[in-house]
Amino acid sequence: MNTTVIGLGKMGRALAAALVARGHDTTVWNRTPGRAGDLAVTNAQTAADAVAANELVILCLLDFESVVDVLDGVELTGRTIVNLTTGTPAEAAKLSALVTGRGAAFLDGGIMAIPSMIGSPAAVVLYSGDEQAFRRAQDVLSAFGDRRYLGAEPGLAALNDIAMLTGMYGMLGGFVHAAAMVRTEGVPVVEFTETLLIPWLRAMFPALVDMAGQIDSGDYTAEESDLAMQVANDGIGEVSRAQGVSTELSDPLFALMRRRVEQGHGGDDFPSVIELLS
Amino acid sequence: MNTTVIGLGKMGRALAAALVARGHDTTVWNRTPGRAGDLAVTNAQTAADAVAANELVILCLLDFESVVDVLDGVELTGRTIVNLTTGTPAEAAKLSALVTGRGAAFLDGGIMAIPSMIGSPAAVVLYSGDEQAFRRAQDVLSAFGDRRYLGAEPGLAALNDIAMLTGMYGMLGGFVHAAAMVRTEGVPVVEFTETLLIPWLRAMFPALVDMAGQIDSGDYTAEESDLAMQVANDGIGEVSRAQGVSTELSDPLFALMRRRVEQGHGGDDFPSVIELLS
Ligand SMILES: NC(=O)c1ccc[n+]([C@@H]2O[C@H](COP(=O)([O-])OP(=O)(O)OC[C@H]3O[C@@H](n4cnc5c(N)ncnc54)[C@H](OP(=O)(O)O)[C@@H]3O)[C@@H](O)[C@H]2O)c1
Ligand SMILES: NC(=O)c1ccc[n+]([C@@H]2O[C@H](COP(=O)([O-])OP(=O)(O)OC[C@H]3O[C@@H](n4cnc5c(N)ncnc54)[C@H](OP(=O)(O)O)[C@@H]3O)[C@@H](O)[C@H]2O)c1
Repeated sequence: MNTTVIGLGKMGRALAAALVARGHDTTVWNRTPGRAGDLAVTNAQTAADAVAANELVILCLLDFESVVDVLDGVELTGRTIVNLTTGTPAEAAKLSALVTGRGAAFLDGGIMAIPSMIGSPAAVVLYSGDEQAFRRAQDVLSAFGDRRYLGAEPGLAALNDIAMLTGMYGMLGGFVHAAAMVRTEGVPVVEFTETLLIPWLRAMFPALVDMAGQIDSGDYTAEESDLAMQVANDGIGEVSRAQGVSTELSDPLFALMRRRVEQGHGGDDFPSVIELLS
Repeated sequence: MNTTVIGLGKMGRALAAALVARGHDTTVWNRTPGRAGDLAVTNAQTAADAVAANELVILCLLDFESVVDVLDGVELTGRTIVNLTTGTPAEAAKLSALVTGRGAAFLDGGIMAIPSMIGSPAAVVLYSGDEQAFRRAQDVLSAFGDRRYLGAEPGLAALNDIAMLTGMYGMLGGFVHAAAMVRTEGVPVVEFTETLLIPWLRAMFPALVDMAGQIDSGDYTAEESDLAMQVANDGIGEVSRAQGVSTELSDPLFALMRRRVEQGHGGDDFPSVIELLS
């Protein structure tokens, strides 16, 4: 299936290269010319020409505004527009309305990978929007890596994308705080991370699924270690202070847990704190 | 090797049961009598009797103070005291001084498991203190699960224990924030957690080891995505607010990243923020 890629930044170029590697005839356009380098692609003169060239059009630009700019005045009738520019669920909904209002099918995507991972199965791309369009395009899209269709609501890919990043930054914050603690006693951080922290986090994954089940059901009845027990002993704060490590990253979670206990939920399991977040 | 267990709370009872299951002759004492139930152990009348019964003495009590209380006035000469009560590195150092000053060898431990996991390889117990004592005791200690000796400094087990908990709470904070986001659109949290979040966190583990290497070396030169890029676009804050989800758990990390960029480290990789923590 012939394909157009609009935007040849670091990510767009990786997408175009993955299509070429799979043998797809690929037309490209980038605002600043010459970015295709030695890629075996067809260079369109304008964005309108690039869109006219193929039914399937993939955009990977800086942000929402640049996508709106590039599509301005371009004939979209009959096209399938796949937006792989990172954005918010609200932006995806706006783009969907704009694109479908001009006679095209719309898919929004969230790329969970860095450019060097594109084309490997480790790269995951989330999609939401027009399901028929996803079915038609998915063989082409498989060139980028693993693909997941999340539903017709255009914002679902962006929402799940940003939620995955949120979970990742939580882990990263816990990691740097923990690393700051152990290095005060000269413990090599690589050794701590490889032999202790990662196996421990991995061992917690089944508990994470159980907690997710508690959130879905709303039943937070604690079995082994309730919120009141968890906040009673602030070892993380005490040891951080004793070792001269800032508690700024852990304080908000413990404050949240204490607020939940004060509300009378001391007998709940940890995920009960979600009820204070939204 | 005959062994004494002092403290038959939820965890102490699991420890005693694991020793019995391995065929060790076990003597126990608990402040409140009758807690051994139907375990095939010898009940000592006093803590002093329990310590006198065997060279290897394991304590698992509520906290540091209760350990000091229980050992008060008890003859310790020639004993090996293994403290599995959770505490701080400073408390471990104090206990070590107290115990070795009274003629006993000292090991401190951190149990990374809940009672129901004791005896399975998934239970990890960290040890630090007297290395000879660890070598003598380790066959017995293997009854509890996987064991790791971290070094002669008595506080190392407590420090690594609390650092692992710190890393875990970071991940849990990220998880509940992410879960709060996806459920605003009716996405089942179990599905998000199992199919998207956990594979994504797992895929980050090699990057965590790389980051640890950057911390050990102090070289934070960014390759793909520097701090300035990461803070430029606050998608997590924007989407959280749009969906009515509190940003209290993610704000401190992004504030820390921004402070590091303002200090002129925008070209560094993420772990550079550790230099603001300690
Ligand atoms: N890089 C990653 O690791 C990564 C990972 C996941 C998702 N993403 C997402 O992928 C998208 C692209 O990222 P990237 O790393 O490729 O960024 P990049 O290297 O900065 O490329 C930005 C692209 O957008 C174009 N552009 C910007 N403003 C424009 C406008 N007003 N009109 C037309 N074109 C415009 C640029 O064209 P010029 O060449 O003319 O400037 C360039 O092609 C972003 O949404 C990013 O969040 C990136
Ligand atoms: N449970 C877990 O999931 C878990 C996981 C990792 C580590 N740990 C650690 O293991 C230790 C014990 O936890 P646990 O769950 O077994 O607690 P627990 O069920 O509350 O038991 C506390 C024990 O401490 C005794 N005790 C308290 N104060 C005392 C005093 N002044 N003198 C003598 N004995 C005293 C209690 O005796 P009485 O029966 O007379 O009250 C009881 O045996 C704690 O340090 C905990 O942090 C527990």
